[in-house]
Amino acid sequence: MKRTADLKTEILAVGTELLTPYFQDTNSLFLIERLNDLGIVVAFKTIVADDHEDLMGCFRTAMKRSRLIISMGGLGPTEDDRTREAAAEALGRKLVFDKTVSRSIRERFRRRGVRMPSSNRKQCYVIDGAEVLTNPNGTAPGLWITSGSIRLVLLPGPPHELKPMFEKDIWPRLRAIGSGFTLRRVLKITGMSESLMEDRIRAVYPKLPPEADITTLAYPGELQVRLSVTGAGDPTSSETVLGTLEKLILKKLGENVYSRTGETMEEAVGALLRSRGRTLACAESCSGGLLSHRLTNVPGSSSYFLEGVISYGNTSKNRLLGVPLSLIREHGAVSGPVAEAMALGVMRRAGSDYGLSITGIAGPEGGTAAKPVGLVYTGLAWRSGAAVEKNVFFGRREIVKFQSTQKALDVLRRRLMEEEI
Amino acid sequence: MKRTADLKTEILAVGTELLTPYFQDTNSLFLIERLNDLGIVVAFKTIVADDHEDLMGCFRTAMKRSRLIISMGGLGPTEDDRTREAAAEALGRKLVFDKTVSRSIRERFRRRGVRMPSSNRKQCYVIDGAEVLTNPNGTAPGLWITSGSIRLVLLPGPPHELKPMFEKDIWPRLRAIGSGFTLRRVLKITGMSESLMEDRIRAVYPKLPPEADITTLAYPGELQVRLSVTGAGDPTSSETVLGTLEKLILKKLGENVYSRTGETMEEAVGALLRSRGRTLACAESCSGGLLSHRLTNVPGSSSYFLEGVISYGNTSKNRLLGVPLSLIREHGAVSGPVAEAMALGVMRRAGSDYGLSITGIAGPEGGTAAKPVGLVYTGLAWRSGAAVEKNVFFGRREIVKFQSTQKALDVLRRRLMEEEI
Repeated sequence: MKRTADLKTEILAVGTELLTPYFQDTNSLFLIERLNDLGIVVAFKTIVADDHEDLMGCFRTAMKRSRLIISMGGLGPTEDDRTREAAAEALGRKLVFDKTVSRSIRERFRRRGVRMPSSNRKQCYVIDGAEVLTNPNGTAPGLWITSGSIRLVLLPGPPHELKPMFEKDIWPRLRAIGSGFTLRRVLKITGMSESLMEDRIRAVYPKLPPEADITTLAYPGELQVRLSVTGAGDPTSSETVLGTLEKLILKKLGENVYSRTGETMEEAVGALLRSRGRTLACAESCSGGLLSHRLTNVPGSSSYFLEGVISYGNTSKNRLLGVPLSLIREHGAVSGPVAEAMALGVMRRAGSDYGLSITGIAGPEGGTAAKPVGLVYTGLAWRSGAAVEKNVFFGRREIVKFQSTQKALDVLRRRLMEEEI
Repeated sequence: MKRTADLKTEILAVGTELLTPYFQDTNSLFLIERLNDLGIVVAFKTIVADDHEDLMGCFRTAMKRSRLIISMGGLGPTEDDRTREAAAEALGRKLVFDKTVSRSIRERFRRRGVRMPSSNRKQCYVIDGAEVLTNPNGTAPGLWITSGSIRLVLLPGPPHELKPMFEKDIWPRLRAIGSGFTLRRVLKITGMSESLMEDRIRAVYPKLPPEADITTLAYPGELQVRLSVTGAGDPTSSETVLGTLEKLILKKLGENVYSRTGETMEEAVGALLRSRGRTLACAESCSGGLLSHRLTNVPGSSSYFLEGVISYGNTSKNRLLGVPLSLIREHGAVSGPVAEAMALGVMRRAGSDYGLSITGIAGPEGGTAAKPVGLVYTGLAWRSGAAVEKNVFFGRREIVKFQSTQKALDVLRRRLMEEEI
């Protein structure tokens, strides 16, 4: 990504709790994304406790090495909140009482029918020369300070205060300084290995214009290709570059791409079921309910998801799904024929258009040489037929469960896409 | 928490990807926990990109303000990996070729039947005067450097390399320096509000010895009380303090505490089912499979979890569970009588000792004035009876689903605990 010239940028997250094993600053992910959108790259993130000397030292260090410094947190009314004081000392400026801020905080308390507690008086002091950023969602105002070539921004820590303040007051000011932007698109891919995907898209890299970037990420059961195009001024030509790049990648990866606008696999499958007017029932063994759970995470899924059965034991497979016990005896509960019978059974009994099934060994116990941990059969039944797929997944129990549901959903997705023809 | 005297500590996380919106350093949570265990408080966390000048600047800043500096990442074989070089320059030391490291890396490749790529030659250079920490899980060795009163530690970034190296080589060295420690216990609580919990344990605070600390955290469906006791030398008396404190809290919170040793709710319930020799079957509507999914996340759950049914539609409730359609017509699918009939139905059909059911409105659609989004009935059936509980949960679909399963599991847990009597 290209840097907005000379705007070396640093984020300062303030709070003793952010240096415990229990909490992590997440505001910075939001800030980095929005700054990147403006073509601003973050060079440093510093996390520091509510300690006056340490905090002041961090501001001094930041002012030496960065030109844009955004701090978050430590603007509250308690003794612990030291960000204003530390920044003022680092800048060599005074804190001055601000009547407008005072009125606004008093008014906020009055609306709730209480007097302003004396501790909040502290929040009425602002750094001399700072622009005050009103906070409609809390008592702590933000501050925008210019000192020579340095811009120092103090934002409150709670996300529901920080985010609106950033969008309303910081974004337009930075936009005016920079005028750069980054356009982004995320493609989600499944059903191929990371190396196969890399092989396929390798040919695109030499064609990549200098303002465009491709990042690939791998998760269990999912790959991502993240496309970005940096530009300045009018975004029209950048949008064209991004669109062309996306088309090139889509051509290389074909139906392996299941999401182009951020949707999850279960949302993609749900949208296809809905648009085709089809219904679904599920029968799960080793995935233990995760398949139905994922499908029903989608709002409105009750219009196409009819029912699910978790048939852990053999008698359940027989009683709930009509899988013949002789079939289980012959092939074993973890087998292609049983996966098929489960999918057909749940479809027929539920009266759905499709039946989807999973049977396998999630581990860590229960594996054998012939049927190892991670062996999973997925079955799909439709009105005129059925198909079974066999896979071996690696990883701990939860990962095997997830990957088996990802595979089952993908099998259904591909079948639904064929329906179109 | 008390600080180990004069050991001002800083963590440096190195990697350009850690300054994108997609990744966050998580190693530091592990490091902070283990350092806190030794009574070492972390004063700063700095995240910096793979940029030689920025990285060297961070080492210089750290050496001015901290006495223990632990960096993670940037020790790999690529051009981007600059941590060794930057630390050497900040220290004013040379990189020297290390024959032992070279032999070990070559041997690692030989075992995989390939020659060491030339890029790995870089990893054979170590900072002059450093103690080399062998890496059994990767090619990058760690480095322990003493420079005056400063201890500088370079660790590899991948968690499966960093964690074992910390335990084997860093922990004993720091233990020898410090001799402080922190003992910890986490109690997980459900079935009460945060404010009720605070009211109950408030009386404990004045009795708190100065070396002990209580932190409370609130999540949807779960509260936590985190106890810690800091000490030095022999931990026996600190263990007694922690034990006494835990007993005080347990007395205040009683059966609301479901976990004392880190176990999840589903593990706690699973352990009770197993110890009582009982079996379970589940019938879910609005939770859509999450109850069965959570129960089957526990390895070995097939010994007590017999089957699950996700009966989204009314006909499924009737056909799979035997819930009379007239009952649904009279009371509605989301009602106490239907929850009870679902629990009894799934227990009888599965032949289990217990039947657990959930029916409700997960949202965002489907709510009415009389039956709002978040209204959930949970039913529990046992051989000689049944009980139903009604709750209204707040939050988005996934949160309502989770809270309804947490409540159902807790109802079963309390019943299983009574069985003991």
